[in-house]
Amino acid sequence: MRRPLAELAALVAGRIEGDASVAISGVNALEQAQPGQLSFYGNPRYKEALAKTRASAVLVGKDVPARAGVAWVRVDNPHLAFARISSVYHPAPTYAPGIAAQASVHPEASVHPSATVMPFATVDKGAKVGARSVLYPSAYVGESASVGDDCVLYSAVTVAARCQVGDRVILHSSCVVGADGFGFAFDFEKPEHVKIPQAGIARVEDDVELGACACVDRATTGETVIGKGSKIDNLVQIAHNVTIGPYSIVCAQVGISGSAEIGTGVVLAGQVGVVGHIRVGDMAKIGAQSGVAQNVPDGAMMSGYPAMPHANWLKASVVAPKLGELLKEVRALRRRLDELEKKGQGA
Amino acid sequence: MRRPLAELAALVAGRIEGDASVAISGVNALEQAQPGQLSFYGNPRYKEALAKTRASAVLVGKDVPARAGVAWVRVDNPHLAFARISSVYHPAPTYAPGIAAQASVHPEASVHPSATVMPFATVDKGAKVGARSVLYPSAYVGESASVGDDCVLYSAVTVAARCQVGDRVILHSSCVVGADGFGFAFDFEKPEHVKIPQAGIARVEDDVELGACACVDRATTGETVIGKGSKIDNLVQIAHNVTIGPYSIVCAQVGISGSAEIGTGVVLAGQVGVVGHIRVGDMAKIGAQSGVAQNVPDGAMMSGYPAMPHANWLKASVVAPKLGELLKEVRALRRRLDELEKKGQGA
Amino acid sequence: MRRPLAELAALVAGRIEGDASVAISGVNALEQAQPGQLSFYGNPRYKEALAKTRASAVLVGKDVPARAGVAWVRVDNPHLAFARISSVYHPAPTYAPGIAAQASVHPEASVHPSATVMPFATVDKGAKVGARSVLYPSAYVGESASVGDDCVLYSAVTVAARCQVGDRVILHSSCVVGADGFGFAFDFEKPEHVKIPQAGIARVEDDVELGACACVDRATTGETVIGKGSKIDNLVQIAHNVTIGPYSIVCAQVGISGSAEIGTGVVLAGQVGVVGHIRVGDMAKIGAQSGVAQNVPDGAMMSGYPAMPHANWLKASVVAPKLGELLKEVRALRRRLDELEKKGQGA
Repeated sequence: MRRPLAELAALVAGRIEGDASVAISGVNALEQAQPGQLSFYGNPRYKEALAKTRASAVLVGKDVPARAGVAWVRVDNPHLAFARISSVYHPAPTYAPGIAAQASVHPEASVHPSATVMPFATVDKGAKVGARSVLYPSAYVGESASVGDDCVLYSAVTVAARCQVGDRVILHSSCVVGADGFGFAFDFEKPEHVKIPQAGIARVEDDVELGACACVDRATTGETVIGKGSKIDNLVQIAHNVTIGPYSIVCAQVGISGSAEIGTGVVLAGQVGVVGHIRVGDMAKIGAQSGVAQNVPDGAMMSGYPAMPHANWLKASVVAPKLGELLKEVRALRRRLDELEKKGQGA
Repeated sequence: MRRPLAELAALVAGRIEGDASVAISGVNALEQAQPGQLSFYGNPRYKEALAKTRASAVLVGKDVPARAGVAWVRVDNPHLAFARISSVYHPAPTYAPGIAAQASVHPEASVHPSATVMPFATVDKGAKVGARSVLYPSAYVGESASVGDDCVLYSAVTVAARCQVGDRVILHSSCVVGADGFGFAFDFEKPEHVKIPQAGIARVEDDVELGACACVDRATTGETVIGKGSKIDNLVQIAHNVTIGPYSIVCAQVGISGSAEIGTGVVLAGQVGVVGHIRVGDMAKIGAQSGVAQNVPDGAMMSGYPAMPHANWLKASVVAPKLGELLKEVRALRRRLDELEKKGQGA
Repeated sequence: MRRPLAELAALVAGRIEGDASVAISGVNALEQAQPGQLSFYGNPRYKEALAKTRASAVLVGKDVPARAGVAWVRVDNPHLAFARISSVYHPAPTYAPGIAAQASVHPEASVHPSATVMPFATVDKGAKVGARSVLYPSAYVGESASVGDDCVLYSAVTVAARCQVGDRVILHSSCVVGADGFGFAFDFEKPEHVKIPQAGIARVEDDVELGACACVDRATTGETVIGKGSKIDNLVQIAHNVTIGPYSIVCAQVGISGSAEIGTGVVLAGQVGVVGHIRVGDMAKIGAQSGVAQNVPDGAMMSGYPAMPHANWLKASVVAPKLGELLKEVRALRRRLDELEKKGQGA
């Protein structure tokens, strides 16, 4: 599947500097790209890789000087353009519609005739699966749950009873939508942790992607919501009554506690923790492993444990490895001061 | 399903201030509650929500002043009373007993006639499933494993060979009881990490709940134990030979290393890490994301990384964002002291 | 299955001090061992347990003084010798070869006749399963994926399309090999996070073990690689294009971001986070919960958040709980200095 560079550039409104007729056979990262492939340069970190790449064409921004023997395709956002062109070479797979003989679809469930239900997938009573959606083996759509159109539920995914999944949602293997929220009240007299019924649902809006083993709990009452176009990575924990997004990015192993509100276009880096009942404002960015215990204003960049403005964190990070020295220094200063004061009194 | 408030109050030994005859149709949080619903107030944080709630009745403690138009139900523990009343409105679902034609039950397995085994669930050789227990699709009960009475194993749950699950246990989707503990001895000469056989089991006692994708490893020898009435949230890691509880609470994404002992009534907040071979004492409380590397005394509150007494952590948390300034300040003090000392010598 | 101690000692080239004819019925930890059992002593931490053990024989290093009534077996590496002897008492289970009637094997898949495919396991089109490998219920081997010889895929494991698993690999329940890497480019105009096709694979080399709910994402292009003999614990996140090993150890809940390179014989303790595009050098050791944001040299020991040389971390850990005091002290020093300077000016 070779395509002329000019055709690809047109797809992304790019301006070619170099040979527009070169045939492109695929896409790759700068370092791995072979002649005949197209790559992209979006981060000065890869300046050297750009200088050495064997790619025949590279998507670049406005201000990258030309290089002989490689065609530049100038675009506003090289990363985005790369995503679009890569999709040309890697179209989504197609699936034969139909329900496998070894699948289990309840007589009162509704599966669109264009959907694909693989062996050992289950669609329970009253559940719905929309057009062209695909259930891999052992996927489970619970009682009265619904999955929209053009979704993919990979192997061993769970969408529990009554939960709602929108259109074009991708649920990776073993992710769990709608397990019970974690709510108990302690009865000292028995003793016993009494379970608080988790009677709400989880709702996953259109264009969301949930990673492998990601968990989105159902609400105590009402809804836990993953807003439109948000992307959630592997092993993320989203507790009951949380709302996220739209268009937020939650990286791997983040944990968000109950009733927290994560705004629009937020980025939570890996392993961040967010306590319950707070709000992380729109467009906020939280650094990896941070512990967010208070409201975060819109647009803020926070890092650290506990989370602090990112600038403070950068300085604190430099001091942290010197804390031992700092303590010694302060003690030395005290001794010198004691000495000076003694002298002063003696004088 | 409307019930008179008086009937509900009687269930929780509550004293009504207001209209005892009001019909209650359901329960909800203060902010979401509608007229006709009952809510609860257990935390001063929600004082404003209490003032604005549209609920017709609210479970409150002893010292909350009355409010016109809302019936107060005075109880000792509003949260606990709410849990009990909520269960009236949200009873556990019932399941038709029997083994689905598409399930797999080994001829030498024993499944109680009142149990429910859904399609693609497997009960392996010599395994037992007790009365009224429910296996959702793709749940797996391994060879010679046992599951007691009144349990629910949601979709894709694993109870591996020989592991034991008590009565009234809830295992959420994709949780894994009894994967091998992580034990290897390095052979430099080959080189090779030689696997240490994990020959023990995991035992989950009565009334335990394990979250989605929670992992409880089997012991190297002997048992890993989740004690009676303990509640474990999603994505928690419990290593080989750990013992927890009874009545402990382990929040999401906590990791507990091998042979650690977590006492009675302990609370580990989200993302806490506990190193191996230590003890966290009874009734201890550990703050979110803390790193526990030493024994924790009974009743202690610890937070931070490394974990320290909570009071120290609160102070350290205030200083952390100022570390950059602190370093500068100390350097400035040193310069001033140098200056003073020079003058002193000059004098 | 009782064996004379002499026979066991010969297996590990051990030298017996004591009764070589004692019959050993099994192995156990020092504290749990019963008469007739063999244990090992590899860490001074267990000195007291060694003194009290009821074991009939103990594997010990060169310099442990003899104790009456217990046979010492002197070896270079007691832990390793224990692993080998334990395997004698706990041989791997055997499985009847064959494909269960309730399994699903695609007509164009290839399953070795000596392999075992349990009910509800699926081997998809073009996939291969090697000799003596075992697929537990609900295991899934995707289209054109391959699993080598002598592997065990426990319940609900996923090996996604085109991914490659070597020989003697153990995949614990619900682990996921080959979910999509987490890559998006933001289109502000739509707005939309555009998915970057994850067209590469994940490759798991020989003798690897992956824990329950561990996730190894497929590469954007090329491969994500878990190198030969590496051992990965439960709930670990390994992002696209990461390479690990050979012979590295990754403990539970570690997260490794995209394109990071983890060298040979590295140890990452529990809950460590590693940012993308950096290298952790051969034989490096990273302490629990550390945040690694920069390259780590070969052989380094690092700890902390952010990760720093372990020696600095030990000192910083001592200071951390005193930060509140330290701030006060510095302020007090400043006041005293103010005072001294005032006096000096007055003089």
